[in-house]
Amino acid sequence: MVFTSRDDLAALLKEIQPVNRQMMEQAQARLDNLTKPRGSLGELEVLAKRICGIQHNIRPDLGRKVILTFAADHGVAVEGVSSVPQDVTRQMVYNFLRGGAGVNVLARHVGAEVWVIDVGVAGEINDVGLISRKVKAGTANLTKGPAMEIDEALQAIGVGVETARQAISNGARILGTGEMGIANTTSSAALFAALLDVGVEEITGRGTGIDDATFNHKIEVIKRSLEINKEHLHGPLATLAALGGLEIAAICGMILECARSRVAVVVDGFISSAGALVALQLEKNVADYCFFSHMSAEQGHRIFFEKLGLSPILNLDMRLGEGTGAALAMGIIEAGVKIINEMATFAEAGVNT
Amino acid sequence: MVFTSRDDLAALLKEIQPVNRQMMEQAQARLDNLTKPRGSLGELEVLAKRICGIQHNIRPDLGRKVILTFAADHGVAVEGVSSVPQDVTRQMVYNFLRGGAGVNVLARHVGAEVWVIDVGVAGEINDVGLISRKVKAGTANLTKGPAMEIDEALQAIGVGVETARQAISNGARILGTGEMGIANTTSSAALFAALLDVGVEEITGRGTGIDDATFNHKIEVIKRSLEINKEHLHGPLATLAALGGLEIAAICGMILECARSRVAVVVDGFISSAGALVALQLEKNVADYCFFSHMSAEQGHRIFFEKLGLSPILNLDMRLGEGTGAALAMGIIEAGVKIINEMATFAEAGVNT
Repeated sequence: MVFTSRDDLAALLKEIQPVNRQMMEQAQARLDNLTKPRGSLGELEVLAKRICGIQHNIRPDLGRKVILTFAADHGVAVEGVSSVPQDVTRQMVYNFLRGGAGVNVLARHVGAEVWVIDVGVAGEINDVGLISRKVKAGTANLTKGPAMEIDEALQAIGVGVETARQAISNGARILGTGEMGIANTTSSAALFAALLDVGVEEITGRGTGIDDATFNHKIEVIKRSLEINKEHLHGPLATLAALGGLEIAAICGMILECARSRVAVVVDGFISSAGALVALQLEKNVADYCFFSHMSAEQGHRIFFEKLGLSPILNLDMRLGEGTGAALAMGIIEAGVKIINEMATFAEAGVNT
Repeated sequence: MVFTSRDDLAALLKEIQPVNRQMMEQAQARLDNLTKPRGSLGELEVLAKRICGIQHNIRPDLGRKVILTFAADHGVAVEGVSSVPQDVTRQMVYNFLRGGAGVNVLARHVGAEVWVIDVGVAGEINDVGLISRKVKAGTANLTKGPAMEIDEALQAIGVGVETARQAISNGARILGTGEMGIANTTSSAALFAALLDVGVEEITGRGTGIDDATFNHKIEVIKRSLEINKEHLHGPLATLAALGGLEIAAICGMILECARSRVAVVVDGFISSAGALVALQLEKNVADYCFFSHMSAEQGHRIFFEKLGLSPILNLDMRLGEGTGAALAMGIIEAGVKIINEMATFAEAGVNT
């Protein structure tokens, strides 16, 4: 399946339905009958209940757990907004494929797989383990004009849709988002600023860990990108194309496909949240399927949660991306699912209510 | 080993040493050389580093993971401070032994075992899976005088020490605390009020979920217990005996033994924190070995953390106890340990620093 037009996207959005609220009530009734004071497992119960609503089943099954880590480069890297050279995107893809990166370790820990997708890395990567879906070799420099053409953004969304669909057809019932792309906190901060109407100083953070001078420069770069692209910033798709990244568009696409397929999707950190925000602005029912894994230490993430009235599952001061937060949160969501599936009821255990 | 005197306790306390700070610095150097921006795995790095300091090893091993769930009854239950009848303590012990309780589900999820110890359940329990170390059939009613004699508290501490020592000698390298005891939030709130010098209204919560009238009565009961026992509230051991519970004393003992043996101990929720507080007041170096798993929804827990300047790992609005929070946090700590053991360095992965 290829996204070649806005019509393809519109057709997908039309298929996204809210979760089953009645099933959530049935799940609550079961949770209240398990051997514990009502509500005493807090967020675990809330998570389990939503999974029941998503799957239309009070004995849900998470099947295979898969993290999709999309890698792509950013033209804005030439502006010197990161402390790390652009080629690290490509180098880290090899690290993912060899299992040595943070996301690999944490995914193994929770029993999840990591699929690595090249949606726009600048350099060539030769490895049979890689899912090669390069739309182009990195975005254009968003301080000079749009990062992507609308058609390129649609293609990258399509990569996310298609990869998620493959994982789901292979048995995944919970997906996690992940990304790698030097300079992508710059792109994400620009997207948040435009889509949430917040100040650039508020939303911009230090990414991989830049000094004060680079930080001030990064803010100035983002302001320039908003100014030069201002005629393009109308609606989520056009804004994504102008300020986003190929991996961010792919994350948007995978989230849309999960929602369409009634599959839970765990959103990683700051950059993944930018992709999620585009998806949410395209279709609000997407929110029912998204689990926000953690509050990133990247300063703008808190503003994202406040503006959307959402809460993350974890707050561990992490800011690595890749899907690391999604992996850890999958473990917590699975704990909730096991609670509803495995705990004894009062009657089964012979415990007084 | 039996604790028959204050001398036995004093001897144990003398053997508790701080963790190895030099090993923590070596661990930090290794963490900084892994393929990620420095510090970008936040709390996972902090947790891993402390485990290295505890084990004197930058490639730490958590061995077997064991949760010790101590059950005991409370004389104060006759005052009507809980929404649940006292016999539920005994009934839940059977539920633990059959694997149907919350702690069983979450322990299995993280690959931990649950050891169930009767340190003072009022009724008889016949089950070969139970570790029977009943000191007495529940505490006395603390509104009439001390809940325990000093010797009884010492014996219960000894049960915790002995059980932890057994788990460690069987290969456990991380232990979690757990408890079951109807009315034990009353006992714990009284302990916090006395040991932290905070108001009873501030520290008292709703336990299993009591109504306003019962809640006000619970506050009044705790105030009476503090008044009638005031001559006994000098020092952590005497205060524990006067206001505590047999399971709280056992938790104190297991924490002391973990610290003595240089083994990490994950403290569960509100009640376990009361046991930990006694241990910390007996010997401040104990803090180096304690990992506080989560912020309980029980309202006083926040005050405990504020007063001690500590932060919990998770905040999932849970208030079940049993060791459920400890189990989940063990999974996060193990994630940190795997990061330091399994992630590739920049040199290994060929990634630019």
